[in-house]
Amino acid sequence: MASRYEIRFAGSGGQGVILAAVVAGEAAALFEEGLSVVQTQSYGPEARGGKSKAEVVIATESIDYPKAMKPNLQVILTQQAAEEYAAETLPGGRIIYDDFFVTSFPQVDANVYYLPIVRTAREKIGKEIVTNMVALGAVARVLELEKIVRPDSVKKAILAKVPEGTKQLNSQAFDEGYLLFKNSVHL
Amino acid sequence: MASRYEIRFAGSGGQGVILAAVVAGEAAALFEEGLSVVQTQSYGPEARGGKSKAEVVIATESIDYPKAMKPNLQVILTQQAAEEYAAETLPGGRIIYDDFFVTSFPQVDANVYYLPIVRTAREKIGKEIVTNMVALGAVARVLELEKIVRPDSVKKAILAKVPEGTKQLNSQAFDEGYLLFKNSVHL
Repeated sequence: MASRYEIRFAGSGGQGVILAAVVAGEAAALFEEGLSVVQTQSYGPEARGGKSKAEVVIATESIDYPKAMKPNLQVILTQQAAEEYAAETLPGGRIIYDDFFVTSFPQVDANVYYLPIVRTAREKIGKEIVTNMVALGAVARVLELEKIVRPDSVKKAILAKVPEGTKQLNSQAFDEGYLLFKNSVHL
Repeated sequence: MASRYEIRFAGSGGQGVILAAVVAGEAAALFEEGLSVVQTQSYGPEARGGKSKAEVVIATESIDYPKAMKPNLQVILTQQAAEEYAAETLPGGRIIYDDFFVTSFPQVDANVYYLPIVRTAREKIGKEIVTNMVALGAVARVLELEKIVRPDSVKKAILAKVPEGTKQLNSQAFDEGYLLFKNSVHL
């Protein structure tokens, strides 16, 4: 991996992007070797618009500046987030859009993946509440390709975090998200 | 309030300090007016010792440096965290210790509150898993005294965050923690 890798999840309040970011951070920090991680939520005075944003910075050295400056990977789950954040992606980086809530997106110098994240949660798993775990599955595939975090580490972090009684559901959602990226993206 | 107020929750993995910090941050950002909030988890390469730490910075202006430098308030739930973090408290600030897991603490220029947080969760509520909500209740009383966040805003943030079916339990734990501080501390 590069010495610093920035991930941003952006969506709306109920989509669980904070938990997704917490889990991604813990996967890197607790289940991989030698990585430093900072996971952040920032809210300005305008925070009450129902938007939700969470970031993870993973580095092989200690992290001086904990906020994402030019995210290597953005997961964007609403149209509003697409308009607000897509342009900040690192040139040549990656954006995963949800294909249900994001209907158009700006032209950006990035690799764009337009995936049925919400629809997979809603239709295949039957619980929209696991949207964040489907998104995490897709992210896990990217982090595997980037050789930063192993999918199994993300799965372990999920199982360590979610409540008893929901582990199977969350695990299944993660697997679906992983396959969504793996099967639709040939690099 | 002062223009910047820093809170740190420190404990061990299963104590839910991240959720406590997320909720405290959302209470300030979403249910109060005009505050900026950054909520952070930082993990170094030594993260796998089972320690858990989460911070909230609340400010009336935009936040340049998002990590806690000298926390105004620390909530410390393990002996290890007491030894590691107590000395960083802002001089004249506040430390809430759990009286079950913290058995001795260093002398620090701070107001110290030694409260049965874990025991309240375990014995009064009957669920140690709500330790973090009891702690949040105590924090809410401090934030009320500091005129930063109203207890009702914290309660709203809890109810917006925790899963259906656990709202009453979490709410009750919060109330107990609030009263724990209110009834034992006379300022």
